[in-house]
Amino acid sequence: MAIDVEQQLAALRSQLEERPGAKKKLSMVVFSGDLDKHIASMIIATGAAAMGMETVLFYTFWGTAALRDPKKRVGGKNIIEKMFGMMLPKGRNKTTISKMNMGGLGTAMIKGLMKKKNVASMDELFEVAGQLGVKIIICEMSMDLMGFKREEMIDYPNLEVGGVATFLADASESSIQLFI
Amino acid sequence: MAIDVEQQLAALRSQLEERPGAKKKLSMVVFSGDLDKHIASMIIATGAAAMGMETVLFYTFWGTAALRDPKKRVGGKNIIEKMFGMMLPKGRNKTTISKMNMGGLGTAMIKGLMKKKNVASMDELFEVAGQLGVKIIICEMSMDLMGFKREEMIDYPNLEVGGVATFLADASESSIQLFI
Amino acid sequence: MAIDVEQQLAALRSQLEERPGAKKKLSMVVFSGDLDKHIASMIIATGAAAMGMETVLFYTFWGTAALRDPKKRVGGKNIIEKMFGMMLPKGRNKTTISKMNMGGLGTAMIKGLMKKKNVASMDELFEVAGQLGVKIIICEMSMDLMGFKREEMIDYPNLEVGGVATFLADASESSIQLFI
Repeated sequence: MAIDVEQQLAALRSQLEERPGAKKKLSMVVFSGDLDKHIASMIIATGAAAMGMETVLFYTFWGTAALRDPKKRVGGKNIIEKMFGMMLPKGRNKTTISKMNMGGLGTAMIKGLMKKKNVASMDELFEVAGQLGVKIIICEMSMDLMGFKREEMIDYPNLEVGGVATFLADASESSIQLFI
Repeated sequence: MAIDVEQQLAALRSQLEERPGAKKKLSMVVFSGDLDKHIASMIIATGAAAMGMETVLFYTFWGTAALRDPKKRVGGKNIIEKMFGMMLPKGRNKTTISKMNMGGLGTAMIKGLMKKKNVASMDELFEVAGQLGVKIIICEMSMDLMGFKREEMIDYPNLEVGGVATFLADASESSIQLFI
Repeated sequence: MAIDVEQQLAALRSQLEERPGAKKKLSMVVFSGDLDKHIASMIIATGAAAMGMETVLFYTFWGTAALRDPKKRVGGKNIIEKMFGMMLPKGRNKTTISKMNMGGLGTAMIKGLMKKKNVASMDELFEVAGQLGVKIIICEMSMDLMGFKREEMIDYPNLEVGGVATFLADASESSIQLFI
């Protein structure tokens, strides 16, 4: 009988540990390419990491363009990949806000305000994210679609390339999941 | 004493089973009517279902237009319903991307790239979703607002019409919830 | 031995109660400033609260403008804050839909349809939300960026001002989290 109770307790314990959403962990899909949403995702991510949560960002579709390093150039692109490369923002500092951009004026205003109000810039946010161990994964299919190469992406600690299964595995053990 | 332990174990066991987020299940609100977001929602949904997760998509607002079957025609619409019907994309293959559409050129480019890179088309994604048992629910209030009728919707296994309570019931037992 | 079992049971019980996502609770970031997304967030929030879920809305970025009371005026704003104040919608009834606005025609059509189909208006939804105990938190950093003052915000039961840590604490104990 005592052995039976021990077994049942062990079973409950392992169920508790393996249950979905068990970890203090945040998983986020960064789909949008807009500056305002990039700011939001980074403020949430660095906040979560600072609170001790494991934090994973999965960049996909328009979001991936912000991970390009404007100083890195790669060859071997076909004409369509070159076009995409030129039309999409070359890195996080070329992204613009989703509303009231007004030919760049709105974006400049927001950036000016952020500086004045001591809100961290995109560069600072990525720096802090790296230091706090925020994990960044770039969607392989999106990179392939847009003709982005791994070598033109930013230097970031342990930057990974992955697929939707990677995101889903992370998300299902996370206590918070968001799509931005 | 032994009986008391049994009772406590049973109570813990049932609490574990009934807890929020207990299931390996994904619930998604598909609010957006843009092609890029429809692709993202379908890739996540089919990926989750392929990994064995119960998967439910709740189509609302602009998202519902993508579920219309362009070959089906229904009568009995008033003038405003007819206008909405004409202005909104007639089915998933008429949706356009949210950025860089450039009068359809951007959408055509993305579709061409998807084909070239062997990414499944919207038709194929819906086909696979149906086979994998991804459940689709259309928001009753949205259909009513936009004047869409049940009879003009696509043929899809067990397509349901439901309200926000249906979504919330699904979402609260899901390990992953997303709003796209 | 019996004491050991009791201890183990107690440990399991407290783990169950303290686990992430333990509560029937919904946390939502309302980032968007569009009428259609405001309607969606309020319908989900009032639905959740009506089903007995603890419900928290965290308004940030463009979303905050909808919480301004058009009848309240505050002084002491600088030129940029005044510009933002004029350019952003002055309260929830000045927000417009994200697609097909057509100079306000689309927004008027949607509002007309909502009335005709007996869908609650924004005013009614906020009224109901307040009665059902939906908690509203306004993002401090967003208010600061846009030059909004606490005194120009709507009268709403227990309206709070908070930061990202507040949202994350709520979200990690919630069974549902959404970013709209």
